[in-house]
Amino acid sequence: MQSLHVDLGVRSYPIYIGENILSEDLLAPYIYGRQVMVVTNETIAPLYLDDLRKCLTKFQVDVTILPDGEAYKDLQHLNQIFDELLSKRHNRTTTLIALGGGVVGDMTGFAAASYQRGVNFIQVPTTLLSQVDSSVGGKTGVNHPLGKNMIGAFYQPQLVVADISVFKSLVDRELSAGLAEVIKYGLIYDEAFFCWLEENIERLLARDSEALSYAVYRSCEIKAEVVAQDEREGGIRAWLNLGHTFGHAIETHQGYGVWLHGEAVAAGTMMAASLSQKMGCISSDELNRIRLLFEKSNLPVIAPDDMTPEAFLSLMAVDKKVLDGRIRLVLLESLGRATVTDDYPQDQLNAVLQGQ
Amino acid sequence: MQSLHVDLGVRSYPIYIGENILSEDLLAPYIYGRQVMVVTNETIAPLYLDDLRKCLTKFQVDVTILPDGEAYKDLQHLNQIFDELLSKRHNRTTTLIALGGGVVGDMTGFAAASYQRGVNFIQVPTTLLSQVDSSVGGKTGVNHPLGKNMIGAFYQPQLVVADISVFKSLVDRELSAGLAEVIKYGLIYDEAFFCWLEENIERLLARDSEALSYAVYRSCEIKAEVVAQDEREGGIRAWLNLGHTFGHAIETHQGYGVWLHGEAVAAGTMMAASLSQKMGCISSDELNRIRLLFEKSNLPVIAPDDMTPEAFLSLMAVDKKVLDGRIRLVLLESLGRATVTDDYPQDQLNAVLQGQ
Repeated sequence: MQSLHVDLGVRSYPIYIGENILSEDLLAPYIYGRQVMVVTNETIAPLYLDDLRKCLTKFQVDVTILPDGEAYKDLQHLNQIFDELLSKRHNRTTTLIALGGGVVGDMTGFAAASYQRGVNFIQVPTTLLSQVDSSVGGKTGVNHPLGKNMIGAFYQPQLVVADISVFKSLVDRELSAGLAEVIKYGLIYDEAFFCWLEENIERLLARDSEALSYAVYRSCEIKAEVVAQDEREGGIRAWLNLGHTFGHAIETHQGYGVWLHGEAVAAGTMMAASLSQKMGCISSDELNRIRLLFEKSNLPVIAPDDMTPEAFLSLMAVDKKVLDGRIRLVLLESLGRATVTDDYPQDQLNAVLQGQ
Repeated sequence: MQSLHVDLGVRSYPIYIGENILSEDLLAPYIYGRQVMVVTNETIAPLYLDDLRKCLTKFQVDVTILPDGEAYKDLQHLNQIFDELLSKRHNRTTTLIALGGGVVGDMTGFAAASYQRGVNFIQVPTTLLSQVDSSVGGKTGVNHPLGKNMIGAFYQPQLVVADISVFKSLVDRELSAGLAEVIKYGLIYDEAFFCWLEENIERLLARDSEALSYAVYRSCEIKAEVVAQDEREGGIRAWLNLGHTFGHAIETHQGYGVWLHGEAVAAGTMMAASLSQKMGCISSDELNRIRLLFEKSNLPVIAPDDMTPEAFLSLMAVDKKVLDGRIRLVLLESLGRATVTDDYPQDQLNAVLQGQ
């Protein structure tokens, strides 16, 4: 078992990474009252809920089972968690445990931030994407029909347990979606990690434990390093959104859940990388390496056919990174380093939005 | 114009108190972007919205008008604010201004805490209750059918403008409801202020500007002092909830909005004071003085006829102050000093719940 420390002052917390590591000894020290509310979904519950219950023998355990999918990440389903908490009379010493992917983690985190104005929160992410992305950094929230993640809070868990044994039951499409974020970490922060991914992509797709453990560890380490420098996203943290401004527009346009988040991020990252190449920041050879790695990972590298540049611009205009009307984009300064800018040639952006 | 400083480190903010003080010069320095969303309700909008607009000539001003009343302080109506923000494309530099009473303030504050994970927030409270209570301390949120204020956040405004000229249009019942919280400050923290209220209650009810200004100032000062010592309610801040555990039960039982919050607090405070007297902490003479002051303020001093002790206990069991099943109560240690305890004779509590 490996561990990482996310350094956020009084809000610091550990991440444990390893195979078959979930246990009462690991969890119990981070549960302060006697009540626990496990939040999961209808897909994950049959797979892992019993295992988790066996680690909570000392506590009053209640469970909220959400429907599965990004389409249900809204205020209405958030309220389902509050309904359960109140009907089971959970008080402010309760602990919420998110057992699931990014949607479950984001919703449980926001419920924990908001229930009685803040209760204890533990993440047990069950997908690659949630282990490397949403479990680190404290971004929680739900979607609004007019924009993704528009309602939420910064709220840190007490503990994250990333058990890689869950990958055995992860469907291929979800594994690929997670790899999109893993690749992103190499692109924005660590060229050597990007090269390692190029060399090890087949092992990762074959679910080699050692390779997956390393990929999760290094991804969490990069994210923790970035977040520790900039918890509230005033600067460098925005790098983590490489491909996300384009990607969120794709997700919103297609309807939440039609494209997986990681799929939209892959196509969005290719758009950001294309613009970076047009601006001379990366070479066409590097652009091709990025495309090839996404393709090998079975990820989309172009936007949906039916999305016009106008649709992109309209949806991107409500993105959280817009400041006073000008769309700010995360681009590559070089392979392994990102930059945030609103200084790019509009005609080159238009060309990218037209798929050129 | 008087001013107070709420001392919360990086989250500190000023409160300005006075007659006809709302102006662009006062507001503009606290608005950082060019977008403003005013949140108000259908009762307040016709009275003050134009005045406020005249103070925002330099900004893009959009408005959300909520229905009036505690019955609409829920997630569904909170979403109305998000709908407006997103359809008018407000970005994370926007400023939300709450123009209204406690319900508008609590909802706007929670919307500001949650929109894009936190945007700028200004309070312009238009009732006595909201000027002395909800505008200080950063408690924001909405109700759930099973419990009051169960969903929310601690979130501080940048600025509070308490313009006492609004009292001219305040209905008598709302003025009285506000006095309940004013009296509470004397009871928990300042015996001399309680005596001043006994001497000046007629002037306050006659809406004497000088008396009202002082009552607002001293109430905010006490609350600011308490909150600065204990922002997240680990200790002394709970004193502010004198009468609220009983009062919330009354509000939830009667249906939100049937009793005004201040009315429920008055009856609840009498119940807490009665228990304190039974326990020998205050004299029966002091209890009578408290009852008389509430009565002079045209406030209820007993719980609704149809509430049984069982109904109270059941509703009080979901209160945020419950820890591991034992109901903690704010009681009076003496006139002018509160205490939080779960150490009280159950039979004396039962007697109070039976109206004895």
